[in-house]
Amino acid sequence: MIYLDNAATTKPNENAIRRAEEYLREKFYNPSAMYTEGYALQGELKKARSILLSSIASETDFEIIFTSCGTESDNHAVFSMAKRGNAVTTSGEHSAVYACFVELKNRGVIEARYAPLNKDGSVNEEKLLELVDAKTSFVSVIHVNNETGAINDVNRLARLVKAKNPRVIFHSDGVQAFGKIPFKLAKEVDLYSISAHKIGGLKGVGALIKRKTLTISPLLYGGGQESGRRSGTENVFGIMQFAFSAQEKFASFKEDFTRLKEYRRLLTDGLDKSVYTVLSGENASPYVTSISAVGLRGEILLHMVNDKGLIVGTGSACSSNAKNRYSRVILACGFDEKTADGVLRVSFCEKTTEDEVRAAVDILNELGRELKARME
Amino acid sequence: MIYLDNAATTKPNENAIRRAEEYLREKFYNPSAMYTEGYALQGELKKARSILLSSIASETDFEIIFTSCGTESDNHAVFSMAKRGNAVTTSGEHSAVYACFVELKNRGVIEARYAPLNKDGSVNEEKLLELVDAKTSFVSVIHVNNETGAINDVNRLARLVKAKNPRVIFHSDGVQAFGKIPFKLAKEVDLYSISAHKIGGLKGVGALIKRKTLTISPLLYGGGQESGRRSGTENVFGIMQFAFSAQEKFASFKEDFTRLKEYRRLLTDGLDKSVYTVLSGENASPYVTSISAVGLRGEILLHMVNDKGLIVGTGSACSSNAKNRYSRVILACGFDEKTADGVLRVSFCEKTTEDEVRAAVDILNELGRELKARME
Repeated sequence: MIYLDNAATTKPNENAIRRAEEYLREKFYNPSAMYTEGYALQGELKKARSILLSSIASETDFEIIFTSCGTESDNHAVFSMAKRGNAVTTSGEHSAVYACFVELKNRGVIEARYAPLNKDGSVNEEKLLELVDAKTSFVSVIHVNNETGAINDVNRLARLVKAKNPRVIFHSDGVQAFGKIPFKLAKEVDLYSISAHKIGGLKGVGALIKRKTLTISPLLYGGGQESGRRSGTENVFGIMQFAFSAQEKFASFKEDFTRLKEYRRLLTDGLDKSVYTVLSGENASPYVTSISAVGLRGEILLHMVNDKGLIVGTGSACSSNAKNRYSRVILACGFDEKTADGVLRVSFCEKTTEDEVRAAVDILNELGRELKARME
Repeated sequence: MIYLDNAATTKPNENAIRRAEEYLREKFYNPSAMYTEGYALQGELKKARSILLSSIASETDFEIIFTSCGTESDNHAVFSMAKRGNAVTTSGEHSAVYACFVELKNRGVIEARYAPLNKDGSVNEEKLLELVDAKTSFVSVIHVNNETGAINDVNRLARLVKAKNPRVIFHSDGVQAFGKIPFKLAKEVDLYSISAHKIGGLKGVGALIKRKTLTISPLLYGGGQESGRRSGTENVFGIMQFAFSAQEKFASFKEDFTRLKEYRRLLTDGLDKSVYTVLSGENASPYVTSISAVGLRGEILLHMVNDKGLIVGTGSACSSNAKNRYSRVILACGFDEKTADGVLRVSFCEKTTEDEVRAAVDILNELGRELKARME
């Protein structure tokens, strides 16, 4: 089986599981407990914080709040910070941000503003900045689009937004960027969401990176874990495995980035253009490539290649329960419904091999042609 | 090491880990994905739902929403349901409910009402019912008190509350009861919180059991997992391990209950009464026993017995970060500060042995006497 749906979830890193296993089996204590065995885990969690944080940000300026997933991190950022006036985001956000904006608008808490996308799924920067005014309290821009792989320059955008209104809180959903895109958080970014299971970590673990001097109200109230910002017993095993997994990912992520760019080229060059159109732009993250078998149904094709041993996604796995047949993001890129209907998402991880990519191209071409012939 | 802080967290069930391991290592797919390997996991999650739900409730009347922990389940229940008028709870709630009431009162959303406790930590039922009136929208009563083990008859209370005001939504935090106390949910209980890591499951996994006909708004918005009630990629490994762990726990929980009652008797009879007072009542859950070395500092004693190989807790591990020196719940039981200062919580699990209890009694007596002599 060739697994190319790594943007939906990755296979947990086995080394990281092994290294973290002691926190599952022996060091199972409650880190809030006062006895040595429990209290010692706070030190271990501190190490995990440092590993994760230092890989992407200055530990002097930023700190980390562990959460249960990227969705919780996004919800925490939006619900705690978008409380008045208007809030600005993009039409290319993951549902975990987008749905919060819809909800806050429905509750009458904020006026929700959506910046349009460029064809590749990146945000139209000029239009975004136009939406920011004196009444803007919060701006959220996805770092790497989870459907097209488009990269937004969130550091630059945060600076430009704050130049227009310095009181704005700037958040970015970095779930598809963390450990994949060479990047260091600029001080102008106040909040940044990450998720473990997109880089070899486990499902059920995420974090919200925040600027230290920013005050944030909790989303979950209770025993006061995470310095009062996120109550609930810390998922020690999951957190340690996340840190170990990130450690490995970051050790090679520049080489991975370069190599996967070549594989992406293999993929986009190899696809039969009489069947497929590449929707992702040249500068997209090499981890995520959106293609469309225009005029065919992506869902049918997905099942056909699945039968031949290839796993790819359609748009965002996270919104596959939604009622809408077409991806909100692909339509927002300006593609028509025929294109949106044929979308497949091919997403790599650092373990993806050249042979797998070549085999995937062959399977996609063979079955794409077959389905096309059947429809004609 | 004798571990008697099982109310804080339990050692994960090894059999359940082994049975669930395939969902960690091989079946790591995203359950929202459309390909066979991903979609099949929905079926596995369905089995887990059934195992967990059927052990405590009618599957015709109730359904289950997976969350990241007991705290999230409690927060979800309170924030989604306590939206107007007044809301009634007890002075004996876990912080995960109590702090939500405080927050909702601070926001001006509800009038928060707290029913007083009896000496054993159970709620004063009469006073609770007096607080319920025509403007009450929500009532939350902890099932088993996490500090004293006092059992509230939540089924009966739910019926009595609804007889007074049928529009009330009744929630119970069942974290310390699930898998431990023989119990079946009555239809009058609308919502019931449970947590995996208190019965051999993993940290980072919980659930909110809800009456099927009850509409609940999400706490986390996004991709629409859990039928739109809890977005975020499902923690498949954690959920499966929770179900397997519950399956084992429920298979023997009546025998466990009876046996641990005897062990509790061994403990309370064996403690030197010139040092210790038992705060828990006769009818408390045998899993949780609160004792006090009145006049001594529980925290010092905890460290002393820890050095001798015995792990016990002080009050609630989950609120050890709180500023207050004394347990809010122990004071609410009517004990004075001297008693509250000396509190230790001794909590069993089904694997606790008679030898461990006897050894724990000896260590507690020896060091309690030693500390007392030192203070005199």
